[in-house]
Amino acid sequence: MKRNVLIIGAGGVAQVAAHKCAQNNDALGDIHIASRTIAKCEAIIASVHAKGSLKQPGVLQAHTIDAMDTPAVAELIRRTGAKIVINLGSAFVNMSVLEACIATGAAYMDTAIHEDPLKICEQPPWYANHEWKRREQCKAAGVTAVLGVGFDPGVVNAYARLAEDRFLDTIRSIDIIDINAGRHDRWFATNFDPEVNFREFTGTVLSWQNGQWTPNKMFEVSQTWDLPVVGPQRAYLTGHDELHSLASRYPQADLRFWMGFGEHYINVFTVLNNLGLLSEQPIKTAEGLEVVPLKVVKAVLPDPASLAPSYTGKTCIGDWVKGTKDGKDAEVFIYNVADHASAFAEVGSQGISYTAGVPPVAAALLIADGTWDTRTMVNVEDLDPVPFLRLMDRMGLPTRVRDAQGDRPWDEVTGV
Amino acid sequence: MKRNVLIIGAGGVAQVAAHKCAQNNDALGDIHIASRTIAKCEAIIASVHAKGSLKQPGVLQAHTIDAMDTPAVAELIRRTGAKIVINLGSAFVNMSVLEACIATGAAYMDTAIHEDPLKICEQPPWYANHEWKRREQCKAAGVTAVLGVGFDPGVVNAYARLAEDRFLDTIRSIDIIDINAGRHDRWFATNFDPEVNFREFTGTVLSWQNGQWTPNKMFEVSQTWDLPVVGPQRAYLTGHDELHSLASRYPQADLRFWMGFGEHYINVFTVLNNLGLLSEQPIKTAEGLEVVPLKVVKAVLPDPASLAPSYTGKTCIGDWVKGTKDGKDAEVFIYNVADHASAFAEVGSQGISYTAGVPPVAAALLIADGTWDTRTMVNVEDLDPVPFLRLMDRMGLPTRVRDAQGDRPWDEVTGV
Repeated sequence: MKRNVLIIGAGGVAQVAAHKCAQNNDALGDIHIASRTIAKCEAIIASVHAKGSLKQPGVLQAHTIDAMDTPAVAELIRRTGAKIVINLGSAFVNMSVLEACIATGAAYMDTAIHEDPLKICEQPPWYANHEWKRREQCKAAGVTAVLGVGFDPGVVNAYARLAEDRFLDTIRSIDIIDINAGRHDRWFATNFDPEVNFREFTGTVLSWQNGQWTPNKMFEVSQTWDLPVVGPQRAYLTGHDELHSLASRYPQADLRFWMGFGEHYINVFTVLNNLGLLSEQPIKTAEGLEVVPLKVVKAVLPDPASLAPSYTGKTCIGDWVKGTKDGKDAEVFIYNVADHASAFAEVGSQGISYTAGVPPVAAALLIADGTWDTRTMVNVEDLDPVPFLRLMDRMGLPTRVRDAQGDRPWDEVTGV
Repeated sequence: MKRNVLIIGAGGVAQVAAHKCAQNNDALGDIHIASRTIAKCEAIIASVHAKGSLKQPGVLQAHTIDAMDTPAVAELIRRTGAKIVINLGSAFVNMSVLEACIATGAAYMDTAIHEDPLKICEQPPWYANHEWKRREQCKAAGVTAVLGVGFDPGVVNAYARLAEDRFLDTIRSIDIIDINAGRHDRWFATNFDPEVNFREFTGTVLSWQNGQWTPNKMFEVSQTWDLPVVGPQRAYLTGHDELHSLASRYPQADLRFWMGFGEHYINVFTVLNNLGLLSEQPIKTAEGLEVVPLKVVKAVLPDPASLAPSYTGKTCIGDWVKGTKDGKDAEVFIYNVADHASAFAEVGSQGISYTAGVPPVAAALLIADGTWDTRTMVNVEDLDPVPFLRLMDRMGLPTRVRDAQGDRPWDEVTGV
């Protein structure tokens, strides 16, 4: 049994996680939120109180932290008595927070790969560059570390494992498809941190095909997928974290990630990228000021959290898995559909934050009750997906499947 | 007789002016070039020597200057013995350089309106905000100041005066049309300082129509003009300096400025502008760094001078003037066509720099020989255009006219 949660970060995803922790504080205990700007943590706490999200009276506290400062994070973990850390800070702080967890014995979770601020698209597999180098340390210290447990990566890894465990005998390909068919009232905005968002698309697109990493350019390869609820959607081959762990478990399969983009997004991205405004490398202005263009773009774009009130429409994210069953070709699409307006009504965030913020709290509950308390470092596909997806059903992100037999809830099919 | 020229600035236009001064150094005397970065002045001097532009052996010297520092500019004017200052620095230094000319008695010229770094599109007429406030001072000190003597403003003001003097009895409208039908090998670039370029289009578009300043939005009003050499060209109603002096001389006429833009330019501009990246107001990055977005955009864009080697095609800039002659409706298009590749071959700059850099040197020659040595502040339409256009014919920017009688050199028509 592990109790007391420390959330690192105070963006839209952290807000969702805070609400979901609060809704489950009978099982999770005290809830702490820490970020560089304490006012953002306090705003989240105010939102939790305003929505009455706390299941029972309990501790809900804000802290200031520099998440790059491992000793400071370790000290905060000790001071708060947190046994579970949900790291939802920027992509640059994963390793410093993980080190603090190793030092204190707290369980660690994140929702995106660690990144070096000055590098885009490191050598594949990405997890081997930073995270997996600490696997032996986690094992030796008996520290539970669940990597990439948002929606994608995270839930989509569990969907892959579900396909393996319950639907197919062999897996030939896994196409992960991420569609946001929502609308908001801003001229342009990214759905999460613009810096992280754009960094995903400025490097080489890597997919795992024919047993090797295959490079493409962004927006070079597209395919229209006919999906439940949101209908036919054009999506583009995109580099993404989960391929870099799934390739270890499914080396025989083609693994691709597809993200939906509208023409407007592509146009804005193309202009900014071609001009060099998405670069993570510092430049100098005529006045001699050194500045990273991408950070300036981030500063002028809307805060993704500010989109929430006007956001309508739905997301559809899932795994299209092909292989064989009983010697015959078979395929299944395992997916979730989330609704922006419902997410806002429940926790004050838009649907993209919601899909990323609920899964780590489900994972926290499974660590708290011992089900997923692995005492080593794992990716989500290493774990039994059933208790996770069952929790997600009840926490607002129900899983459905569509295959030759039709479209229905996953547990009707698997009978778990 | 005034001799010895000091050029302030070391961009593409200054390079053209330096070459043209060198080609006429028998009349102009010593040539000095000063900018914040002396290396840029030295590169221009090297280019003048490489092309053999000096007509006769003479002084050609580089200096470091902060053009915002009036006493330093005055000291440089005295030290160099310059009697003519051609200010081709940024739009923010006009007044500090003009003050230095008033203090020393040197003649002053510029090619664009003075701007306050923090203001876009001040109250019309723009010249009344800064320049004309110093008119009495110039008169009292007997200082010649020729404002806006590039191509537009500048030559187009002379074209308006030529229409008044030689072609029409009454003037009903003057449409100034600026088309660059050239191509270069960069994905996107502005043809002159991006900061100045974009600032022209982010404010309200002001034209003088029906006896008053009329506001429009950028890209709101367009018209296709069928022009000599470059053919039919779509151009957009744009705010521009020359309207703000011409409205004093031609208050009865509709005065409009039209600039040609391709769809690609408009798209890039629209993305940058809508995102707030063309703002002249400082913003703060998440890391707390204060930065002006427009200056970052400027820093990532190609240096306009770097376009020159690959630039091909032509520019066409002129005045389409309508009114009456001998009681009947009449109209005339007075224009110049310049060629990018020829400009590069002659002076190492592209055509846009060439059209802006030649006219102030023609004006310098007219100040040097006394023809335009007005000993007060003037705009170009206040001066006799004939000696100016005759000089321009011989210096590489010949004037042509097209009217009901056909298309031919201006002096065949006017017989000057």
